[in-house]
Amino acid sequence: MAAWGERLAGVRGVLLDISGVLYDSGEGGGVPIAGSVEAVARLKRSRLKVRFCTNESQKSRGHLVGLLRHLGYDISEGEVTAPAPAACLILRERGLRPHLLVHDGVRSEFAQVDTSNPNCVVIADAGESFSYQNMNKAFQVLMELENPVLISLGRGRYYKETSGLMLDVGAYTKALEYACGIKAEVVGKPSPEFFKSALQQMGVEAHQAVMIGDDIVGDVGGAQRCGMRALQVRTGKFRPSDERHPEVKADGYVDNLAEAVDLLLQHADK
Amino acid sequence: MAAWGERLAGVRGVLLDISGVLYDSGEGGGVPIAGSVEAVARLKRSRLKVRFCTNESQKSRGHLVGLLRHLGYDISEGEVTAPAPAACLILRERGLRPHLLVHDGVRSEFAQVDTSNPNCVVIADAGESFSYQNMNKAFQVLMELENPVLISLGRGRYYKETSGLMLDVGAYTKALEYACGIKAEVVGKPSPEFFKSALQQMGVEAHQAVMIGDDIVGDVGGAQRCGMRALQVRTGKFRPSDERHPEVKADGYVDNLAEAVDLLLQHADK
Repeated sequence: MAAWGERLAGVRGVLLDISGVLYDSGEGGGVPIAGSVEAVARLKRSRLKVRFCTNESQKSRGHLVGLLRHLGYDISEGEVTAPAPAACLILRERGLRPHLLVHDGVRSEFAQVDTSNPNCVVIADAGESFSYQNMNKAFQVLMELENPVLISLGRGRYYKETSGLMLDVGAYTKALEYACGIKAEVVGKPSPEFFKSALQQMGVEAHQAVMIGDDIVGDVGGAQRCGMRALQVRTGKFRPSDERHPEVKADGYVDNLAEAVDLLLQHADK
Repeated sequence: MAAWGERLAGVRGVLLDISGVLYDSGEGGGVPIAGSVEAVARLKRSRLKVRFCTNESQKSRGHLVGLLRHLGYDISEGEVTAPAPAACLILRERGLRPHLLVHDGVRSEFAQVDTSNPNCVVIADAGESFSYQNMNKAFQVLMELENPVLISLGRGRYYKETSGLMLDVGAYTKALEYACGIKAEVVGKPSPEFFKSALQQMGVEAHQAVMIGDDIVGDVGGAQRCGMRALQVRTGKFRPSDERHPEVKADGYVDNLAEAVDLLLQHADK
């Protein structure tokens, strides 16, 4: 058992990333990561509070949860903090009418949002919908605005599917930022507001919480900047060079969620 | 006549950008910019040396020159400095075998290049070929290399077609740079090597040359950093905010190439 496990003392709540920690997405819905179904079940039977904190922006929460339940996970929509619903709140608060550069799978999350005569662009992980035509349309909308507003659901560089590494929304956000000479507002990890809303929904303070994710920057670095502890799993998009990242050092590295849960159940209560 | 025209004294050679200065590309090949066909002809009848210096990377030089001749321009392939042939020289010198993320229209420029078992990626203005699948393939090639090399033909933000502003290669280069955590090598404007090769081919020193373009950063800023003078035309992708650019100030702003040539013919010999 890792010696740094003692750093988990006093943890009361656990935020779990989904893609790369619970499952790898891909053809046919994806595959669960070995040991993770049982690990989530053990966490939920423990005294620890659990919440799922994802940057998934290609699927609606309903679709995502349906898929995970099909893979054997005990999870419901109400337990998931995701960027699309968070973005909808912001759009409503600020009277923004988005042009949506998103995957069809997440469009239902924006069903109640006015998208006529757009005064901003919302970009999500559009996958195959990141065609030149769709990117160019979003670019043209931004260039026609006096004060262009670009809201990006996450800024991930890539994620892992069963078929290999896949470009994530962050790359395309950078493209639009550069082309328009603007800076996007990020909704999702590593935005502090996003982590804070997940903590609030779980009812746990940052110093009592641990984030478990496969993204050294978005999950680990982001959570640590909010005062949380954070573990990186060696699954999903993890690469060995992450453990020598020049700026971010996780509180611990574990082979998978199962090992993280072993350590948590052993040390959290102390 | 603009008072700053006197700054053109001593000019012996003129580098002309093509897209946005000679013509706007678009459906059916594009349209010439008013007055530019005659302006090029006047320049060529003068004592000034003329060379065309373009970042066009969607079409081969042969195709581009054919199109311009069809629009009425007196131009030949040998007068054009373009990034694809410059990139081919670099690939050969360094033993690089590229994966090509380029438009089919420019592929012929790379006919003599070994593209088997790629050890680098060359990205050009691929237009509609910037699909998610093609971007992702280039990303995966880079991520599999121990020392990923990305060569970008220009780093333009956008250009103007008759139908509106269009995303240029620079945006997609930024996307790959961010996703892979690397920095691209730029072949084309504003790379100093590229301007220098154009000057050399024209046989004129930098301090004796003026660049005329519609891109305040790529044309004007790049040429000035090489010791050249530079004019921006108010055609093509020009936007009024360019005249208040925070970092680059042109030696002069002209309504179009015709006005630039008027000034040049009046002042260059003095």
